[in-house]
Amino acid sequence: MVSKQPSQIKRLIDLLARLPGLGPKSATRLTLYFLSRDESEVRDLAQALVAVKEGIKFCSTCHNYAERDPCPICSSLERDFCQICVVETPADLFIVESSGLYRGLYHVLGGALSPLSGIGPDDLHIEDLIDRIDLAASFNKPIKEIVLATGSSAEAESTCVYLCERLKDKDLIVTRLARGLPSGVDLEYVDGKTLKQALEFRRLA
Amino acid sequence: MVSKQPSQIKRLIDLLARLPGLGPKSATRLTLYFLSRDESEVRDLAQALVAVKEGIKFCSTCHNYAERDPCPICSSLERDFCQICVVETPADLFIVESSGLYRGLYHVLGGALSPLSGIGPDDLHIEDLIDRIDLAASFNKPIKEIVLATGSSAEAESTCVYLCERLKDKDLIVTRLARGLPSGVDLEYVDGKTLKQALEFRRLA
Repeated sequence: MVSKQPSQIKRLIDLLARLPGLGPKSATRLTLYFLSRDESEVRDLAQALVAVKEGIKFCSTCHNYAERDPCPICSSLERDFCQICVVETPADLFIVESSGLYRGLYHVLGGALSPLSGIGPDDLHIEDLIDRIDLAASFNKPIKEIVLATGSSAEAESTCVYLCERLKDKDLIVTRLARGLPSGVDLEYVDGKTLKQALEFRRLA
Repeated sequence: MVSKQPSQIKRLIDLLARLPGLGPKSATRLTLYFLSRDESEVRDLAQALVAVKEGIKFCSTCHNYAERDPCPICSSLERDFCQICVVETPADLFIVESSGLYRGLYHVLGGALSPLSGIGPDDLHIEDLIDRIDLAASFNKPIKEIVLATGSSAEAESTCVYLCERLKDKDLIVTRLARGLPSGVDLEYVDGKTLKQALEFRRLA
């Protein structure tokens, strides 16, 4: 079939196979699925794809994807204006937000410091964060806590260290997500680094 | 985020999550991926989706998806006109064809007989198959072998039985894909039905 495939089918399989989590097999399965569905259904998806690129901008305050600026979270009156949760990417924001456990504001850095990849402080939305904090203070709505919700990669660690340094003069507390055992695992399956962190972060039972 | 998500993002996640093999999580990951890519890249995919529906028709001979009618396989001079491989769906045709092991023609039934789902012989391209065989004979290019490459579901089985019955008066042989052990498995992992079939289909070593 490879050689005899209609060009449109080849092209769609090729494009789908490049998507994260998909390969040639799943791309082929999806393509055959689309061929078997109503044209309107496939058009809807095509339009949704274009719409997501046309309609979505960035919030100039938190730098998350948003339909309008400021985004619904930054402009919401139900959120706790005293907390800013700092995340690396909009994807991380999605994860924290969908947990439903956090009611404060966010700030998307747009990545993590990585000297190797040539990503320095100026490449991230760090100055914006400082400005946000100062602006909030000047409006007498001071930020009381910055929650560093970054990953546990080396880059994320150094980003945290850098942020703590930049924020140390501010009149607020800086917290970090706890490191420790993920839920529902036996100790025997926990790697040494995680166990070390779990011990460091141990607290009174 | 669920409640605060921009509508375009919600919609795309929703549509992607309905696709086979995808769920809410992978749909969200894909949506964030699209957001992070160039608009042109996403447009290409959207256009490929529409093109596959607009450009692809069915071959009136073998009922496979095709750009033109008859399809490249039916109109190819390199294929063996004496063999017709009968498959349930274009997806099955893809699989047989990509194996590169078969050089004859195909016939897509469009499903399998299923009294429970109310799918009878008239709902499948069975008469067309008979006509193809008769037509080929009348043009003095007789079909010598019909290869039944259907699955091993109950519906597939009864479809095979029905086809054998319909084809028994024709001057050709009807073969079926062998049932047996899949490659690279230990006997201990083989279910009873497969083992039974492997014994039935056993041959001299």
